[in-house]
Amino acid sequence: MKQSKLFTKTQKFAPKDEISKNAQLLIRAGFAHKEMAGVYSFLPLGLRVIEKISEIIKVEMDAIGGMQMKNSALQVQNVWEKTNRWDDAVVDNWFKTELKNGTKVGLAFTHEEAMTNLMKNFVSSYKDLPAYPYDIRTMFRNETRAKSGLMRGREFYWKALYSFSIDEAQHNEFYERAKKSYQKIYKNVGLGAKTYLTFASGGTFSKYSHEFQTISEAGEDIIYVDEEKNIAINKEVLTDEVLSDLNVNKDNLKETKAIEVGNIFSLGTKFSEPIGLTYKNKDGKEKKVFMGSYGIGIGRLMGTIVEVFADDKGIVWPESVAPFKIHLLVLGTQSVVRSQADELYRKLQEAGVEVLYDERDIQPGQKFADSDLIGIPYRVVISERSLKDGGVELKKRNEEKGKIVKIKNLLENKKYARNNN
Amino acid sequence: MKQSKLFTKTQKFAPKDEISKNAQLLIRAGFAHKEMAGVYSFLPLGLRVIEKISEIIKVEMDAIGGMQMKNSALQVQNVWEKTNRWDDAVVDNWFKTELKNGTKVGLAFTHEEAMTNLMKNFVSSYKDLPAYPYDIRTMFRNETRAKSGLMRGREFYWKALYSFSIDEAQHNEFYERAKKSYQKIYKNVGLGAKTYLTFASGGTFSKYSHEFQTISEAGEDIIYVDEEKNIAINKEVLTDEVLSDLNVNKDNLKETKAIEVGNIFSLGTKFSEPIGLTYKNKDGKEKKVFMGSYGIGIGRLMGTIVEVFADDKGIVWPESVAPFKIHLLVLGTQSVVRSQADELYRKLQEAGVEVLYDERDIQPGQKFADSDLIGIPYRVVISERSLKDGGVELKKRNEEKGKIVKIKNLLENKKYARNNN
Repeated sequence: MKQSKLFTKTQKFAPKDEISKNAQLLIRAGFAHKEMAGVYSFLPLGLRVIEKISEIIKVEMDAIGGMQMKNSALQVQNVWEKTNRWDDAVVDNWFKTELKNGTKVGLAFTHEEAMTNLMKNFVSSYKDLPAYPYDIRTMFRNETRAKSGLMRGREFYWKALYSFSIDEAQHNEFYERAKKSYQKIYKNVGLGAKTYLTFASGGTFSKYSHEFQTISEAGEDIIYVDEEKNIAINKEVLTDEVLSDLNVNKDNLKETKAIEVGNIFSLGTKFSEPIGLTYKNKDGKEKKVFMGSYGIGIGRLMGTIVEVFADDKGIVWPESVAPFKIHLLVLGTQSVVRSQADELYRKLQEAGVEVLYDERDIQPGQKFADSDLIGIPYRVVISERSLKDGGVELKKRNEEKGKIVKIKNLLENKKYARNNN
Repeated sequence: MKQSKLFTKTQKFAPKDEISKNAQLLIRAGFAHKEMAGVYSFLPLGLRVIEKISEIIKVEMDAIGGMQMKNSALQVQNVWEKTNRWDDAVVDNWFKTELKNGTKVGLAFTHEEAMTNLMKNFVSSYKDLPAYPYDIRTMFRNETRAKSGLMRGREFYWKALYSFSIDEAQHNEFYERAKKSYQKIYKNVGLGAKTYLTFASGGTFSKYSHEFQTISEAGEDIIYVDEEKNIAINKEVLTDEVLSDLNVNKDNLKETKAIEVGNIFSLGTKFSEPIGLTYKNKDGKEKKVFMGSYGIGIGRLMGTIVEVFADDKGIVWPESVAPFKIHLLVLGTQSVVRSQADELYRKLQEAGVEVLYDERDIQPGQKFADSDLIGIPYRVVISERSLKDGGVELKKRNEEKGKIVKIKNLLENKKYARNNN
């Protein structure tokens, strides 16, 4: 993409009321626009990152049997009354609104009720199970405070999968697969080394739920990490009993702040019972469906990646989620340099490389600063000087110094091509 | 996809309160689920169609310089007050809700205000224009009545592009490109022959706006078609003056019901003036940005396609938007037939063909009925009989009779492959 075609520009300052690093950088670099506290629009660069993360999640959800669909945001009262989650006194982050005839409706903050109700149309026999529908969509939560930028929004983009199984054994088998699938997702978006499977409070049907927590000073949670065992425990549940359950020695635990980047939860029959989602087993007996839920905030993941990798110059995207792989900067206005730059841009595109081409007629210093702020993994500078030195200057965003490479070698290096992260 | 893995099933009946043909068929066939009047979830089959239509639209928007982004649904009051569109007495289809601190917010029914306000961050000079951001997302409109199924929803999926130009001349040039681009879209989704560029009421800045109207008995609009000139006039604006403007003879017009499947509108400075979106021209003079808007309801397009092509047995999808290209039905339970069917399914997938494989252990009659209801363009039946006859039975959804083709020929026919509509 030619940078002059991108209608966004970098900005020197973020809005004054924006205190979180992730939102400040994402706004200044032109990835997000703040509509109000906790509500952001994704600009073209931001949407590209959101779509990369979504695609990584999709691949893993499909691999474990997930089936994508699209729920509605608007929710009917009577289904939520069955689980006692309609009342604002019980669930305090509803957005409610009403139809012209006065009927109250809600804006989904989650979809357990809607999905359980929907599945009643399709589940009657054990043969109809298991089922793993999932959704990637905008959700709404009426947060009292929204000060963590894209990490806790009033309107946010997430993935939720719901599992419907015949019994706890079938559920547990899927739950373990989901755990591994989540770990792959964090690895693939670049957060693997900093993200821990974390034991958190369960419910009626399971002693624990599992969170995925990424170590960061910007985190709102406190966790205790056992690096040797590669697990963590949420402060909420840190008791001697839990230590003994997990066979963890208190002395090996390290306290740290962390961001919850996902959670998986055994729901048992908490929703299927009140809503009446049942099936007939092999013996013709009526049984309740055993459920689980599996969420990942995609905007939050984007914000987390910014928090974890950014340096004092700007964002540093991992290759797998970067909006472009190469940021091509042409310096100077000589037509011989410009024409070689144009040709390189064309050839990179032909080779399937995602490249942002800064062909704007502005000072080199501004181009370098913008490039650092936007954070594309590979910066390629073409100038009179680089051509004299034998090619282009290639520098990784997280390295200090670049090196001259021949244009031919850059074009032949497969690692820049689209599907080769 | 194996049909047994699809958690949806076909249903004999649609909900009793569902009177529109498109929603009845989409619900019965397992494409949509009705949450409430005017609010539908898209099931996996439905989401596939929505994504196919979206992709066709994206390609055309990108081709005319569009840049995709993602606006927020939640809207702030003060921006909408500037254009006098916040008050429910002025705009009667708002959904409003409020933050915990009592601040009223709205759910976007369109994005002119939000986009105009957003562009103030990025537009200061004539060099920053033109710009063509667009969005594909869920919108909300508090319709008093919602009886047309997916064609008029309270929550619906649409594409909106907004154009920002330096003046009317630059605007008009893009407007003409958008017109052609829309015509390509309707052609590519299969509605080209039934869709007319239709003159409708304009505004302060243009005598006419343009709608795209698809002829259908289910339509809510009345249009007058001049087949020779390949244009139509909305009943709303049919006057002698208009006939003379368009050089149309009243006797050549045919009255018909039609569905508005898109519209494009010259907005002039209607939004840029009150919101204050200006730029400096070459002479350093402050000028107002000249705008246009370009919408297509994607859910509505899906509903329209169902209305236009369905027959008494079910849906008939055009190839370009069908959830799958081939519906493969295996009949009988003999292992020799089953193993050949499994192998054909595997080979079709390897060849890049999107295929829904009905490997369920149910009666042939039910498989045929489901296949007709779901409406995939090519039905391939493999059975003991077909193998004896030399291959598989291939039948187009909109043809009466099938014919036997050799498996080898089916696999070698490139027209079934994914990117070859």
